[in-house]
Amino acid sequence: MERQDSPTDVLEYRPIGVIRSPFCERHGMPIQAAFAEAVRGRVELEPAYAPGLLDLEGFSHLILLYHFHLSGHFRLHVQPYLEDRAHGVFATRAPRRPNAIGLSVVRLEGIEGTTLHIVNVDVVDGTPLLDIKPYVPQFDDRPGARIGWLANRVQEAGSRKADGRFA
Amino acid sequence: MERQDSPTDVLEYRPIGVIRSPFCERHGMPIQAAFAEAVRGRVELEPAYAPGLLDLEGFSHLILLYHFHLSGHFRLHVQPYLEDRAHGVFATRAPRRPNAIGLSVVRLEGIEGTTLHIVNVDVVDGTPLLDIKPYVPQFDDRPGARIGWLANRVQEAGSRKADGRFA
Repeated sequence: MERQDSPTDVLEYRPIGVIRSPFCERHGMPIQAAFAEAVRGRVELEPAYAPGLLDLEGFSHLILLYHFHLSGHFRLHVQPYLEDRAHGVFATRAPRRPNAIGLSVVRLEGIEGTTLHIVNVDVVDGTPLLDIKPYVPQFDDRPGARIGWLANRVQEAGSRKADGRFA
Repeated sequence: MERQDSPTDVLEYRPIGVIRSPFCERHGMPIQAAFAEAVRGRVELEPAYAPGLLDLEGFSHLILLYHFHLSGHFRLHVQPYLEDRAHGVFATRAPRRPNAIGLSVVRLEGIEGTTLHIVNVDVVDGTPLLDIKPYVPQFDDRPGARIGWLANRVQEAGSRKADGRFA
C-alpha cells in the first residue's frame, strides 16, 4: 500500500527515541550545534529500532531531526537570537515553527547497543527524536551559500546563548 | 502553553505546502539534490504562511523537510540505490524510514508571492512540505566528515537514478 496523503492531511509521526543533553531548559544553551563544541550527549533509541543502526558507526557525523517539545505555538515573524529585528520564521532556525521540527548535525563518538554517544549537542534534555540520517558532505554541503541577514551576525553565534525567548 | 509531549506521544504535523517537480514517480529521479543540478521545481506555500517568508530571499540555499508520501511501510534494513548489500535504515537516506521525513538542500532562484522557484530538486511532484529552513554553511557544513559505506559509492551518485525499489 502506498501512502497517498494529500497536503491537507495530518501527518502522524512517533518519536523513535530521545536525546539526552546537559541542558534542562533552553536558557543558556548554545544556539547551534556547530558552536556546542564540547557538549556531550546521547541518543537513546527505542530498542525496537536497533537493527536500523547497522553500519551507522562508519559515519563521523549524523543529522538528527527532532521535535521542539518545549516551544510554544508558532509565530510567522520571529526575532532570532542573532538579530534585533524580526524575520520570517522560514528565514530563521527558531523553534517556534508551524511544524516544530529541529535539525542538528552532531558528531558521533560511538554506539553501545541502542545508545549513541554524540558531541555538539544543542538541544534540551528529553527532546523527542524523529529521525537519524548519515551526514554526507557530498550531498549536504553548499560551501559558498549566501546567508542573507545572518551574514553580519553569524560570527556572534558562538558567543551568544539562548535566552528562553521561545519558551 | 508549552508543548509537553512525552516520547511515546504521537506528534501531528500539517503540510505547509507542496513541492512541484518534473518527476511524477520516483523511477528515474536523481537520488540526491546535489546531483539534480539542472532540475527546476517550485515550492507552493499555503497562503496563510506567507509572512513567514520575510527575508528568505537573502539566502541562496534552503533546507526543505518533507514527507515521503509515496514510500511504503518502513524497513529497518534497506538496500540503498548506491549499494548492493543492506544497511541499517539510519545509515542511509532511503525514504522507507520509521518517520518518513526527507531532507533536501535546494537552491533558491526567486520568490513570487508564495511560490518559491528552486533548483536541484530530487523529490516527486506533489510531495507534502513540512518545513523550510535557511541553509547556513557555518551551522550545517562538516567538510571532513567520514561517510562509512558511502565512501566508495558516492562518486556514482551523480549517474545512478532511482529505480522505484522503495515504492
